Amino acid sequence: MSGLFITIEGPDGAGKTTVTQRVAERLLNEGFEVVMTREPGGIPIAEQIREVLHDTKNTAMDSRTEALLYAAARRQHLMEKVRPALEQGKVVICDRFVDSSLAYQGYARGLGVDEVWSINQFAIEGFLPVRTYFFDITPEEGLRRIEASAIREVNRLDEEGLAFHQKVYEGYQKLLEKFPERIVRIDAGKSIPEVEEEMYTHIRQDLNMVY
Amino acid sequence: MSGLFITIEGPDGAGKTTVTQRVAERLLNEGFEVVMTREPGGIPIAEQIREVLHDTKNTAMDSRTEALLYAAARRQHLMEKVRPALEQGKVVICDRFVDSSLAYQGYARGLGVDEVWSINQFAIEGFLPVRTYFFDITPEEGLRRIEASAIREVNRLDEEGLAFHQKVYEGYQKLLEKFPERIVRIDAGKSIPEVEEEMYTHIRQDLNMVY
Repeated sequence: MSGLFITIEGPDGAGKTTVTQRVAERLLNEGFEVVMTREPGGIPIAEQIREVLHDTKNTAMDSRTEALLYAAARRQHLMEKVRPALEQGKVVICDRFVDSSLAYQGYARGLGVDEVWSINQFAIEGFLPVRTYFFDITPEEGLRRIEASAIREVNRLDEEGLAFHQKVYEGYQKLLEKFPERIVRIDAGKSIPEVEEEMYTHIRQDLNMVY
Repeated sequence: MSGLFITIEGPDGAGKTTVTQRVAERLLNEGFEVVMTREPGGIPIAEQIREVLHDTKNTAMDSRTEALLYAAARRQHLMEKVRPALEQGKVVICDRFVDSSLAYQGYARGLGVDEVWSINQFAIEGFLPVRTYFFDITPEEGLRRIEASAIREVNRLDEEGLAFHQKVYEGYQKLLEKFPERIVRIDAGKSIPEVEEEMYTHIRQDLNMVY
Protein backbone atom coordinates (compact mmCIF):
# COMPACT_ATOMS: atom_id res chain seq x y z
CA MET A 1 0.00 0.00 0.00
CA SER A 2 1.63 3.22 -1.12
CA GLY A 3 -1.09 5.65 0.01
CA LEU A 4 -2.08 7.01 3.42
CA PHE A 5 -5.24 5.87 5.17
CA ILE A 6 -6.69 8.32 7.70
CA THR A 7 -10.00 8.13 9.56
CA ILE A 8 -11.99 10.78 11.42
CA GLU A 9 -14.08 10.06 14.51
CA GLY A 10 -16.08 11.93 17.11
CA PRO A 11 -19.55 13.05 18.16
CA ASP A 12 -21.97 14.69 15.76
CA GLY A 13 -21.59 18.48 15.76
CA ALA A 14 -17.82 18.29 16.29
CA GLY A 15 -17.12 19.87 12.91
CA LYS A 16 -15.53 16.76 11.38
CA THR A 17 -16.86 17.30 7.86
CA THR A 18 -16.17 21.05 7.68
CA VAL A 19 -12.61 20.85 9.00
CA THR A 20 -11.72 17.76 6.97
CA GLN A 21 -12.90 19.37 3.74
CA ARG A 22 -10.73 22.44 4.42
CA VAL A 23 -7.70 20.28 5.19
CA ALA A 24 -8.33 18.11 2.10
CA GLU A 25 -8.48 21.22 -0.09
CA ARG A 26 -5.10 22.39 1.20
CA LEU A 27 -3.60 18.98 0.48
CA LEU A 28 -5.13 18.95 -3.02
CA ASN A 29 -3.64 22.40 -3.68
CA GLU A 30 -0.25 20.99 -2.67
CA GLY A 31 -0.58 18.28 -5.30
CA PHE A 32 -1.70 15.29 -3.25
CA GLU A 33 -4.41 13.04 -4.62
CA VAL A 34 -7.03 13.01 -1.88
CA VAL A 35 -10.14 10.82 -1.66
CA MET A 36 -12.72 11.93 0.90
CA THR A 37 -15.26 9.28 1.74
CA ARG A 38 -17.58 8.24 4.56
CA GLU A 39 -19.23 5.30 6.23
CA PRO A 40 -21.64 3.67 5.87
CA GLY A 41 -21.86 4.08 2.08
CA GLY A 42 -19.49 5.31 -0.60
CA ILE A 43 -20.24 2.56 -3.16
CA PRO A 44 -23.57 1.07 -4.37
CA ILE A 45 -23.68 -2.08 -2.19
CA ALA A 46 -22.76 -0.12 0.94
CA GLU A 47 -25.32 2.57 0.05
CA GLN A 48 -27.99 -0.18 -0.14
CA ILE A 49 -26.92 -1.33 3.34
CA ARG A 50 -26.99 2.30 4.52
CA GLU A 51 -30.61 2.54 3.39
CA VAL A 52 -31.52 -0.48 5.55
CA LEU A 53 -29.67 1.09 8.51
CA HIS A 54 -31.22 4.54 8.12
CA ASP A 55 -34.78 3.50 7.16
CA THR A 56 -36.95 5.16 9.83
CA LYS A 57 -39.48 2.32 9.48
CA ASN A 58 -36.90 -0.14 10.82
CA THR A 59 -37.63 0.57 14.49
CA ALA A 60 -37.47 -3.18 15.24
CA MET A 61 -33.79 -3.38 14.33
CA ASP A 62 -31.79 -5.34 16.89
CA SER A 63 -28.42 -3.91 18.04
CA ARG A 64 -26.53 -6.98 16.82
CA THR A 65 -28.19 -6.79 13.40
CA GLU A 66 -27.11 -3.13 13.29
CA ALA A 67 -23.50 -4.00 14.21
CA LEU A 68 -23.33 -6.75 11.55
CA LEU A 69 -24.75 -4.41 8.88
CA TYR A 70 -22.17 -1.72 9.68
CA ALA A 71 -19.42 -4.36 9.46
CA ALA A 72 -20.80 -5.58 6.10
CA ALA A 73 -20.91 -2.04 4.66
CA ARG A 74 -17.39 -1.44 6.02
CA ARG A 75 -16.01 -4.56 4.33
CA GLN A 76 -17.44 -3.71 0.94
CA HIS A 77 -16.37 -0.05 1.10
CA LEU A 78 -12.86 -1.08 2.15
CA MET A 79 -12.47 -3.59 -0.70
CA GLU A 80 -14.11 -1.56 -3.46
CA LYS A 81 -13.04 1.99 -2.65
CA VAL A 82 -10.48 2.45 0.13
CA ARG A 83 -7.92 -0.22 -0.76
CA PRO A 84 -7.89 0.45 -4.54
CA ALA A 85 -7.32 4.17 -3.86
CA LEU A 86 -4.49 3.41 -1.43
CA GLU A 87 -2.90 1.05 -3.96
CA GLN A 88 -2.87 3.99 -6.38
CA GLY A 89 -0.93 5.99 -3.79
CA LYS A 90 -3.77 8.30 -2.81
CA VAL A 91 -4.54 9.88 0.56
CA VAL A 92 -7.84 8.41 1.75
CA ILE A 93 -9.69 10.32 4.47
CA CYS A 94 -12.70 8.38 5.73
CA ASP A 95 -15.39 9.93 7.94
CA ARG A 96 -15.98 7.14 10.50
CA PHE A 97 -14.51 3.63 10.45
CA VAL A 98 -14.16 0.74 12.91
CA ASP A 99 -13.87 2.99 16.00
CA SER A 100 -17.43 4.22 15.42
CA SER A 101 -18.70 0.64 15.72
CA LEU A 102 -16.66 0.12 18.89
CA ALA A 103 -17.95 3.34 20.50
CA TYR A 104 -21.58 3.22 19.28
CA GLN A 105 -22.48 -0.50 19.16
CA GLY A 106 -19.76 -1.95 21.36
CA TYR A 107 -19.79 0.54 24.21
CA ALA A 108 -22.95 2.69 24.04
CA ARG A 109 -25.33 -0.10 22.99
CA GLY A 110 -23.63 -2.43 25.45
CA LEU A 111 -22.72 -5.23 23.03
CA GLY A 112 -19.15 -5.22 24.32
CA VAL A 113 -16.13 -3.59 22.66
CA ASP A 114 -14.27 -6.93 22.33
CA GLU A 115 -17.23 -8.67 20.67
CA VAL A 116 -17.77 -5.85 18.18
CA TRP A 117 -14.02 -5.73 17.56
CA SER A 118 -14.13 -9.44 16.75
CA ILE A 119 -16.79 -9.21 14.00
CA ASN A 120 -15.01 -6.16 12.63
CA GLN A 121 -11.77 -8.11 12.44
CA PHE A 122 -13.64 -10.53 10.18
CA ALA A 123 -14.54 -7.50 8.04
CA ILE A 124 -11.23 -5.61 7.93
CA GLU A 125 -8.71 -8.47 8.46
CA GLY A 126 -6.39 -6.27 10.49
CA PHE A 127 -6.48 -3.42 8.01
CA LEU A 128 -6.43 -0.28 10.16
CA PRO A 129 -5.80 3.38 9.36
CA VAL A 130 -2.32 4.76 9.94
CA ARG A 131 -3.89 7.59 11.91
CA THR A 132 -7.30 8.35 13.39
CA TYR A 133 -8.25 11.88 14.38
CA PHE A 134 -10.72 12.04 17.23
CA PHE A 135 -12.58 15.34 17.23
CA ASP A 136 -12.97 15.86 20.95
CA ILE A 137 -16.07 17.73 21.96
CA THR A 138 -18.62 16.88 24.63
CA PRO A 139 -22.01 15.66 23.38
CA GLU A 140 -23.62 18.68 25.09
CA GLU A 141 -21.41 21.10 23.14
CA GLY A 142 -22.08 19.10 19.94
CA LEU A 143 -25.81 19.45 20.55
CA ARG A 144 -25.47 23.18 21.27
CA ARG A 145 -23.62 23.70 17.97
CA ILE A 146 -26.21 21.73 16.02
CA GLU A 147 -28.93 23.85 17.59
CA ALA A 148 -27.06 27.10 16.84
CA SER A 149 -26.23 26.26 13.24
CA ALA A 150 -29.38 24.33 12.29
CA ILE A 151 -27.21 21.64 10.65
CA ARG A 152 -30.11 19.27 11.06
CA GLU A 153 -33.39 18.75 12.92
CA VAL A 154 -32.76 18.84 16.67
CA ASN A 155 -35.60 16.48 17.58
CA ARG A 156 -33.43 13.43 16.91
CA LEU A 157 -31.29 14.46 19.89
CA ASP A 158 -33.89 14.20 22.62
CA GLU A 159 -33.07 13.38 26.24
CA GLU A 160 -32.58 9.70 25.57
CA GLY A 161 -30.42 10.60 22.59
CA LEU A 162 -28.15 12.75 24.72
CA ALA A 163 -27.71 9.98 27.32
CA PHE A 164 -26.77 7.63 24.47
CA HIS A 165 -24.30 10.11 23.00
CA GLN A 166 -22.71 10.60 26.40
CA LYS A 167 -22.06 6.87 26.46
CA VAL A 168 -20.62 7.07 22.94
CA TYR A 169 -18.28 9.80 24.20
CA GLU A 170 -17.17 7.61 27.12
CA GLY A 171 -16.55 4.83 24.61
CA TYR A 172 -14.27 7.07 22.56
CA GLN A 173 -12.29 7.99 25.70
CA LYS A 174 -11.65 4.27 26.27
CA LEU A 175 -10.52 3.85 22.67
CA LEU A 176 -8.03 6.73 23.10
CA GLU A 177 -6.52 4.76 26.00
CA LYS A 178 -6.56 1.51 24.03
CA PHE A 179 -4.95 2.86 20.85
CA PRO A 180 -2.69 5.72 22.04
CA GLU A 181 -0.39 5.49 19.01
CA ARG A 182 -3.04 5.42 16.33
CA ILE A 183 -5.71 7.78 17.66
CA VAL A 184 -4.80 11.47 17.95
CA ARG A 185 -7.05 13.77 19.97
CA ILE A 186 -7.96 17.02 18.27
CA ASP A 187 -9.41 19.76 20.49
CA ALA A 188 -12.62 20.44 18.56
CA GLY A 189 -13.72 23.07 21.11
CA LYS A 190 -11.50 25.66 19.38
CA SER A 191 -12.48 27.75 16.35
CA ILE A 192 -12.71 26.10 12.93
CA PRO A 193 -9.45 27.73 11.61
CA GLU A 194 -7.60 26.64 14.76
CA VAL A 195 -8.89 23.05 14.53
CA GLU A 196 -8.05 23.02 10.82
CA GLU A 197 -4.49 24.14 11.56
CA GLU A 198 -4.07 21.48 14.25
CA MET A 199 -5.30 18.68 12.01
CA TYR A 200 -3.33 19.93 9.01
CA THR A 201 -0.09 20.02 11.01
CA HIS A 202 -0.62 16.44 12.18
CA ILE A 203 -1.54 15.10 8.73
CA ARG A 204 1.45 16.87 7.18
CA GLN A 205 3.73 14.92 9.54
CA ASP A 206 2.07 11.63 8.56
CA LEU A 207 2.40 12.52 4.89
CA ASN A 208 6.10 13.14 5.33
CA MET A 209 6.46 9.57 6.64
CA VAL A 210 4.80 8.06 3.55
CA TYR A 211 5.58 10.26 0.53
CA MET B 1 -38.59 -21.79 25.32
CA SER B 2 -41.54 -24.14 25.16
CA GLY B 3 -41.59 -24.76 21.38
CA LEU B 4 -39.45 -26.87 19.07
CA PHE B 5 -36.92 -25.29 16.71
CA ILE B 6 -36.04 -27.36 13.65
CA THR B 7 -33.94 -26.39 10.64
CA ILE B 8 -33.65 -27.92 7.17
CA GLU B 9 -30.42 -27.96 5.18
CA GLY B 10 -29.09 -29.42 1.95
CA PRO B 11 -28.33 -28.71 -1.72
CA ASP B 12 -30.85 -27.07 -4.03
CA GLY B 13 -33.07 -29.65 -5.73
CA ALA B 14 -33.08 -31.96 -2.71
CA GLY B 15 -36.83 -31.53 -2.22
CA LYS B 16 -36.52 -29.66 1.09
CA THR B 17 -39.50 -27.35 0.53
CA THR B 18 -41.87 -29.99 -0.88
CA VAL B 19 -41.21 -32.58 1.81
CA THR B 20 -41.22 -30.05 4.66
CA GLN B 21 -44.59 -28.65 3.57
CA ARG B 22 -46.11 -32.16 3.53
CA VAL B 23 -44.70 -32.93 6.99
CA ALA B 24 -45.88 -29.56 8.32
CA GLU B 25 -49.40 -30.24 7.04
CA ARG B 26 -49.52 -33.58 8.87
CA LEU B 27 -48.40 -31.89 12.07
CA LEU B 28 -50.99 -29.12 11.63
CA ASN B 29 -53.69 -31.78 11.17
CA GLU B 30 -52.58 -33.36 14.43
CA GLY B 31 -53.14 -30.05 16.22
CA PHE B 32 -49.60 -28.65 16.46
CA GLU B 33 -49.04 -24.98 15.76
CA VAL B 34 -46.42 -24.96 13.03
CA VAL B 35 -44.55 -21.95 11.64
CA MET B 36 -42.71 -22.55 8.37
CA THR B 37 -40.15 -19.91 7.53
CA ARG B 38 -36.96 -19.46 5.57
CA GLU B 39 -33.68 -17.59 5.42
CA PRO B 40 -32.70 -15.02 4.42
CA GLY B 41 -35.96 -13.12 4.90
CA GLY B 42 -39.19 -13.77 6.76
CA ILE B 43 -39.59 -10.26 8.21
CA PRO B 44 -39.23 -6.79 6.61
CA ILE B 45 -35.66 -5.94 7.72
CA ALA B 46 -34.37 -9.37 6.68
CA GLU B 47 -36.23 -9.12 3.37
CA GLN B 48 -34.46 -5.79 2.73
CA ILE B 49 -31.14 -7.54 3.42
CA ARG B 50 -32.21 -10.43 1.15
CA GLU B 51 -32.73 -7.90 -1.66
CA VAL B 52 -29.14 -6.67 -1.27
CA LEU B 53 -27.89 -10.29 -1.29
CA HIS B 54 -29.94 -11.35 -4.33
CA ASP B 55 -29.61 -8.18 -6.44
CA THR B 56 -28.06 -9.42 -9.69
CA LYS B 57 -26.36 -6.03 -10.15
CA ASN B 58 -24.26 -6.67 -7.03
CA THR B 59 -21.59 -8.68 -8.82
CA ALA B 60 -18.87 -6.84 -6.87
CA MET B 61 -20.04 -8.29 -3.55
CA ASP B 62 -17.15 -9.58 -1.46
CA SER B 63 -17.53 -13.00 0.24
CA ARG B 64 -17.06 -11.51 3.70
CA THR B 65 -19.69 -8.84 3.03
CA GLU B 66 -22.01 -11.67 1.98
CA ALA B 67 -21.31 -13.68 5.16
CA LEU B 68 -21.94 -10.62 7.37
CA LEU B 69 -25.21 -9.83 5.58
CA TYR B 70 -26.46 -13.41 6.04
CA ALA B 71 -25.56 -13.21 9.74
CA ALA B 72 -27.39 -9.85 10.05
CA ALA B 73 -30.54 -11.23 8.38
CA ARG B 74 -30.30 -14.33 10.61
CA ARG B 75 -30.10 -12.25 13.78
CA GLN B 76 -33.14 -10.13 12.93
CA HIS B 77 -35.24 -13.12 11.80
CA LEU B 78 -34.31 -15.02 14.96
CA MET B 79 -35.26 -12.15 17.27
CA GLU B 80 -38.41 -11.00 15.47
CA LYS B 81 -39.92 -14.25 14.25
CA VAL B 82 -38.30 -17.49 15.46
CA ARG B 83 -37.90 -16.78 19.17
CA PRO B 84 -41.34 -15.19 19.70
CA ALA B 85 -42.99 -18.22 18.00
CA LEU B 86 -41.00 -20.64 20.16
CA GLU B 87 -41.94 -18.68 23.28
CA GLN B 88 -45.57 -19.24 22.27
CA GLY B 89 -44.90 -22.99 22.20
CA LYS B 90 -44.98 -23.35 18.41
CA VAL B 91 -43.03 -25.73 16.18
CA VAL B 92 -40.76 -23.57 14.01
CA ILE B 93 -39.36 -25.19 10.87
CA CYS B 94 -36.81 -22.94 9.18
CA ASP B 95 -35.48 -23.59 5.67
CA ARG B 96 -31.74 -22.90 6.09
CA PHE B 97 -29.99 -21.50 9.18
CA VAL B 98 -26.43 -21.22 10.47
CA ASP B 99 -25.23 -24.45 8.79
CA SER B 100 -25.88 -22.90 5.36
CA SER B 101 -23.43 -20.10 6.19
CA LEU B 102 -20.86 -22.63 7.43
CA ALA B 103 -21.19 -24.79 4.28
CA TYR B 104 -21.57 -22.02 1.67
CA GLN B 105 -19.44 -19.13 2.96
CA GLY B 106 -17.22 -20.93 5.47
CA TYR B 107 -16.30 -24.00 3.44
CA ALA B 108 -17.20 -23.47 -0.24
CA ARG B 109 -16.12 -19.82 -0.44
CA GLY B 110 -13.06 -20.63 1.65
CA LEU B 111 -13.57 -18.10 4.45
CA GLY B 112 -13.07 -20.82 7.06
CA VAL B 113 -15.77 -22.65 9.01
CA ASP B 114 -14.43 -21.42 12.37
CA GLU B 115 -14.35 -17.80 11.28
CA VAL B 116 -17.89 -17.89 9.91
CA TRP B 117 -19.02 -19.77 13.01
CA SER B 118 -17.56 -16.94 15.10
CA ILE B 119 -19.51 -14.10 13.45
CA ASN B 120 -22.63 -16.27 13.57
CA GLN B 121 -22.16 -16.79 17.30
CA PHE B 122 -22.35 -13.00 17.59
CA ALA B 123 -25.67 -13.23 15.71
CA ILE B 124 -27.31 -16.24 17.41
CA GLU B 125 -25.63 -16.16 20.86
CA GLY B 126 -25.57 -19.94 21.12
CA PHE B 127 -29.18 -20.33 20.07
CA LEU B 128 -29.21 -23.48 17.92
CA PRO B 129 -32.04 -25.69 16.65
CA VAL B 130 -32.85 -28.84 18.60
CA ARG B 131 -32.63 -30.77 15.34
CA THR B 132 -31.37 -30.11 11.84
CA TYR B 133 -32.41 -32.32 8.94
CA PHE B 134 -29.81 -32.56 6.21
CA PHE B 135 -31.41 -33.58 2.91
CA ASP B 136 -28.63 -35.68 1.49
CA ILE B 137 -28.40 -35.64 -2.29
CA THR B 138 -25.38 -35.09 -4.50
CA PRO B 139 -25.22 -31.73 -6.31
CA GLU B 140 -25.30 -33.64 -9.62
CA GLU B 141 -28.57 -35.36 -8.67
CA GLY B 142 -29.96 -32.03 -7.43
CA LEU B 143 -29.10 -30.46 -10.78
CA ARG B 144 -30.68 -33.39 -12.66
CA ARG B 145 -33.91 -32.96 -10.71
CA ILE B 146 -34.01 -29.20 -11.28
CA GLU B 147 -33.53 -29.86 -15.01
CA ALA B 148 -36.26 -32.53 -15.04
CA SER B 149 -38.80 -30.52 -13.10
CA ALA B 150 -38.02 -27.03 -14.39
CA ILE B 151 -38.15 -25.67 -10.81
CA ARG B 152 -36.04 -22.79 -12.00
CA GLU B 153 -33.76 -21.62 -14.80
CA VAL B 154 -30.87 -24.05 -15.21
CA ASN B 155 -28.37 -21.48 -16.48
CA ARG B 156 -27.55 -20.38 -12.93
CA LEU B 157 -26.01 -23.83 -12.36
CA ASP B 158 -23.27 -23.71 -14.97
CA GLU B 159 -20.00 -25.63 -14.70
CA GLU B 160 -18.51 -23.23 -12.19
CA GLY B 161 -21.75 -23.39 -10.25
CA LEU B 162 -21.58 -27.19 -10.03
CA ALA B 163 -17.98 -27.10 -8.76
CA PHE B 164 -19.08 -24.61 -6.10
CA HIS B 165 -22.05 -26.79 -5.10
CA GLN B 166 -19.80 -29.82 -4.83
CA LYS B 167 -17.74 -27.89 -2.31
CA VAL B 168 -20.90 -26.92 -0.46
CA TYR B 169 -21.78 -30.64 -0.30
CA GLU B 170 -18.35 -31.47 1.12
CA GLY B 171 -18.90 -28.72 3.68
CA TYR B 172 -22.17 -30.31 4.79
CA GLN B 173 -20.43 -33.70 5.21
CA LYS B 174 -17.96 -32.04 7.59
CA LEU B 175 -20.82 -30.48 9.55
CA LEU B 176 -22.46 -33.91 9.93
CA GLU B 177 -19.21 -35.10 11.55
CA LYS B 178 -18.96 -31.98 13.71
CA PHE B 179 -22.56 -32.03 15.00
CA PRO B 180 -23.55 -35.74 15.04
CA GLU B 181 -26.22 -35.26 17.72
CA ARG B 182 -27.94 -32.27 16.20
CA ILE B 183 -27.80 -32.96 12.47
CA VAL B 184 -29.79 -35.94 11.14
CA ARG B 185 -29.10 -37.18 7.64
CA ILE B 186 -32.21 -37.80 5.52
CA ASP B 187 -31.73 -39.88 2.38
CA ALA B 188 -33.22 -37.48 -0.15
CA GLY B 189 -32.48 -39.86 -3.03
CA LYS B 190 -35.66 -41.81 -2.24
CA SER B 191 -39.17 -40.93 -3.48
CA ILE B 192 -40.98 -37.91 -1.99
CA PRO B 193 -43.44 -40.06 0.09
CA GLU B 194 -40.53 -42.12 1.46
CA VAL B 195 -38.52 -39.03 2.39
CA GLU B 196 -41.63 -37.48 3.93
CA GLU B 197 -42.18 -40.60 6.06
CA GLU B 198 -38.55 -40.62 7.21
CA MET B 199 -38.61 -36.94 8.21
CA TYR B 200 -42.04 -37.22 9.83
CA THR B 201 -40.95 -40.20 11.98
CA HIS B 202 -37.88 -38.29 13.19
CA ILE B 203 -39.78 -35.07 13.95
CA ARG B 204 -42.51 -37.02 15.77
CA GLN B 205 -39.83 -38.37 18.15
CA ASP B 206 -38.50 -34.85 18.79
CA LEU B 207 -42.04 -33.61 19.41
CA ASN B 208 -42.58 -36.35 22.00
CA MET B 209 -39.55 -35.01 23.89
CA VAL B 210 -40.94 -31.46 24.04
CA TYR B 211 -44.76 -31.63 24.19
